[in-house]
Amino acid sequence: MSKLLTPGPVHVPEFVMEAIRRPVIHHRSQGFAKFYGGMLERLGYLFQARQVGTMIGSGTYGVASMMYSVFRPGEKVLVLSNGKFSGRWKDEALHLGLEVRSFEVAWGKAIQTNAVMKDLENVEALAGVVITHSETSTSCLVDLEELAFQLRQKFPEVLILVDGITSVGAMPYYHDTWAIDASITASQKSLMNPAGTVAFALSDRALGRLRPTHQGDFRNVWNYMEAIKKLTYPYTAPVQLLYGLDAALQFIEEAGLPAVWDRCHQSARYFRKSLLELGGETFGENISDSLTAFSFPEKAAEQLKVELKSRFAWTLSSGQGGLKGVILRTSHMGTSDVGVMEEFVRDLRACL
Amino acid sequence: MSKLLTPGPVHVPEFVMEAIRRPVIHHRSQGFAKFYGGMLERLGYLFQARQVGTMIGSGTYGVASMMYSVFRPGEKVLVLSNGKFSGRWKDEALHLGLEVRSFEVAWGKAIQTNAVMKDLENVEALAGVVITHSETSTSCLVDLEELAFQLRQKFPEVLILVDGITSVGAMPYYHDTWAIDASITASQKSLMNPAGTVAFALSDRALGRLRPTHQGDFRNVWNYMEAIKKLTYPYTAPVQLLYGLDAALQFIEEAGLPAVWDRCHQSARYFRKSLLELGGETFGENISDSLTAFSFPEKAAEQLKVELKSRFAWTLSSGQGGLKGVILRTSHMGTSDVGVMEEFVRDLRACL
Repeated sequence: MSKLLTPGPVHVPEFVMEAIRRPVIHHRSQGFAKFYGGMLERLGYLFQARQVGTMIGSGTYGVASMMYSVFRPGEKVLVLSNGKFSGRWKDEALHLGLEVRSFEVAWGKAIQTNAVMKDLENVEALAGVVITHSETSTSCLVDLEELAFQLRQKFPEVLILVDGITSVGAMPYYHDTWAIDASITASQKSLMNPAGTVAFALSDRALGRLRPTHQGDFRNVWNYMEAIKKLTYPYTAPVQLLYGLDAALQFIEEAGLPAVWDRCHQSARYFRKSLLELGGETFGENISDSLTAFSFPEKAAEQLKVELKSRFAWTLSSGQGGLKGVILRTSHMGTSDVGVMEEFVRDLRACL
Repeated sequence: MSKLLTPGPVHVPEFVMEAIRRPVIHHRSQGFAKFYGGMLERLGYLFQARQVGTMIGSGTYGVASMMYSVFRPGEKVLVLSNGKFSGRWKDEALHLGLEVRSFEVAWGKAIQTNAVMKDLENVEALAGVVITHSETSTSCLVDLEELAFQLRQKFPEVLILVDGITSVGAMPYYHDTWAIDASITASQKSLMNPAGTVAFALSDRALGRLRPTHQGDFRNVWNYMEAIKKLTYPYTAPVQLLYGLDAALQFIEEAGLPAVWDRCHQSARYFRKSLLELGGETFGENISDSLTAFSFPEKAAEQLKVELKSRFAWTLSSGQGGLKGVILRTSHMGTSDVGVMEEFVRDLRACL
């Protein structure tokens, strides 16, 4: 049992490590094409999407490259933010020269669909929206299904881009049915893999927005989609990492997505119930199943983190930015199931 | 013995795979800081440089991000090109809005120091130079030591950026002594690792050119160098991949760089001597030790590639662009030593 409880990176289970150590094959070969084709099918299942792909890089690279690829400088784009990562996308949107319309609430506050729609009442010509489904810094979740529906009703052609880094594979996510245009996730979360790869899904609308630049433009998703037509990669493919991703996707497919989502949900519910019994508090409104941000009124967060590590070898994440020293965060993704939470709660009790 | 002879990705030896499967640790922890500090020291040995770092991504990401980070739009930058990859940097320079001065010779032709310097005779205010040390598409090598010396003599403050992707770790490379400003290499070449990480070295001049943008700007090397001050990563670190890199760096350190360079050199010399005996020809002028591009007058290249694969399981690379069908390419990096070349030459003979 792994005692790594950070909400990314998560523990990489043995079956993923075994897949990663398979021999290198070249990314321009029939062997790779066959492998990648099968993997993309399984990735489609994960996103519940027809058109999917992978890239080399961190989650930040994934979301920012997608923003660069589907939006054009000067376009009006709404960015919703209530934490460190969603705030990062606002900065990136400014950096890309978009006309940024920012909808911001305090860290830990939920982004309510009604409030967003009210804010957009008199807005026309909205080219895009950037939504962070589950904000990893605070655990706040957006009601993506409803929000996407309302946005689509008012702006039929708006391009909806979703940071699904800590949501895809942890909670219900239906890229095609929810009419999301671009969804991005990263390997070191619910996919239980080392950091370094990004997976995404695209709608026809998003695909139609991609434009060629040049082959060395590694931010341009167009290059990846062109290569996918031939089941290859525009750059040297991270073959080992893709082996690992595929092993996780096979695992998810065999269990079935609802069972995987439920495992994450049960872990979250069990931990939160126990937390209340121990006198602790969750942080944030409308919290996600993939992680819990929490604190104890009578115990300093950083002190608790140190004790859990030194006495019991558990690794948790601190709060980020202004929340450092205020909250701790534990993951419910991947192998952090109810069984692991039971052990964790027992040791947590001993530290209080 | 691996039969993967592509000049990247190369075979990942067992000791690297073993390192990669070590348990995940979080990238903001004392454990990571200690590990990363040690790894950076070994990386400094590889580059023969004081200031080094790593990033997540492909080699293209590495070189292009470095160009983005050290040059400013409008600056006059000379780009030397004679193949697919060096050509890519020219496109990227244009894309970044640099005032590109291009020095181009045909694929397979050597870039001569004298010709470059003559071309620069009446040039002033040259902000930078982008040099591809070993052009992987043709195997042509630049005399980097001499070229850098001449450039520095004429332009004391010019920023020299080197794509060392198939040279660092394969041939003598002295970042600090040669007064290179930014050197970049990638994991899937002489470092015998899966693709997905980039390593670099910087001079004080290059460090002084870095400017903050925002934390989500994953192209900005400034973010990586800020994080390195605290021995951490600006994004989720590819910890497993860094374990793998460190294992390779330890291996190189124990053998000693001259012995590693010599192994590559001997492999190249043995193969080229045998090639002549078999009636084959090398392609390109001033060829690099890290790979050989070759052909046989009486045997079609692609046909030979297919036979080597189907009869003996060897994987080679085709030529790229207009050289497809004209040449094949074999690697001498990493585990492709004389012993492997002996086996390869025996099977090659059988296919002629």
